[in-house]
Amino acid sequence: MKDLNLTPIKKLEIILDGEHRAFATDLLDRAGVKGYTIINNLSGKGSHGFHSGHLMFNEDDVLIMIVVAVPEELVEPILEGFGPFFNSHSGVVFVSDIQVTRMVKFRH
Amino acid sequence: MKDLNLTPIKKLEIILDGEHRAFATDLLDRAGVKGYTIINNLSGKGSHGFHSGHLMFNEDDVLIMIVVAVPEELVEPILEGFGPFFNSHSGVVFVSDIQVTRMVKFRH
Amino acid sequence: MKDLNLTPIKKLEIILDGEHRAFATDLLDRAGVKGYTIINNLSGKGSHGFHSGHLMFNEDDVLIMIVVAVPEELVEPILEGFGPFFNSHSGVVFVSDIQVTRMVKFRH
Repeated sequence: MKDLNLTPIKKLEIILDGEHRAFATDLLDRAGVKGYTIINNLSGKGSHGFHSGHLMFNEDDVLIMIVVAVPEELVEPILEGFGPFFNSHSGVVFVSDIQVTRMVKFRH
Repeated sequence: MKDLNLTPIKKLEIILDGEHRAFATDLLDRAGVKGYTIINNLSGKGSHGFHSGHLMFNEDDVLIMIVVAVPEELVEPILEGFGPFFNSHSGVVFVSDIQVTRMVKFRH
Repeated sequence: MKDLNLTPIKKLEIILDGEHRAFATDLLDRAGVKGYTIINNLSGKGSHGFHSGHLMFNEDDVLIMIVVAVPEELVEPILEGFGPFFNSHSGVVFVSDIQVTRMVKFRH
């Protein structure tokens, strides 16, 4: 699928309380992220993954999921940037491997 | 990225009719899932993947996607738990490999 | 997990302006996709991945994400089908590896 220019890249899905949206998108902007998509009005409960502790959502929270596709070298600075925030706020970041189309001209 | 404590884990994306939300979250609770996030008000059509048969959505259905991150050993019991349900109801489960941040203290 | 009939498959997440929904679902139908799920009312900004150029969303755009699970051989024709569209419209396609349950009878 050479013509399709599929590029390996990392997808981050950042789930947090919607009231912290500006904080999160500012952090992404400063990290050099060129764009993001936000899924609004999620509901949720508890914590994701292995850990509970203070990482709790209530049914009443209005959560958002910020979806970003970033080159691998941005994953670490972004996660480090979110570290202090997640020490005192609920949320989680999912990291996965995806491919994106480079969206170059397909016409020949 | 040792400091980031990225942990491999499985993500389940469970798509079903919103009227069965309580059934699904109860099943997840009983399976030991510590939390989930729900994307509400999806629309959809047809079936996902290879199979049609009775796994049909209409454009009028109000679907939800329940997103959970679970350790690998929970995947099988959860899918088995949903088996009888999906024998008579529409829906699908996507399973994928992700990593989550353990959200430990980042300050040193 | 043989009994679970987990089948490897490709997930496409197609993000574009909601006004082009019918174009996109028609293209998927013609490519042989049997179903899809749509997350409505996303917000977004900028472009995903490495590339900016004309792939821009404004904060005011109402985006949708169309989620489809397809056999690998459909990825290339679908991406080729979207090529001309993405030459003149904003959007991105994420491709990832997932597994789906075949949803066969679990009762023995």
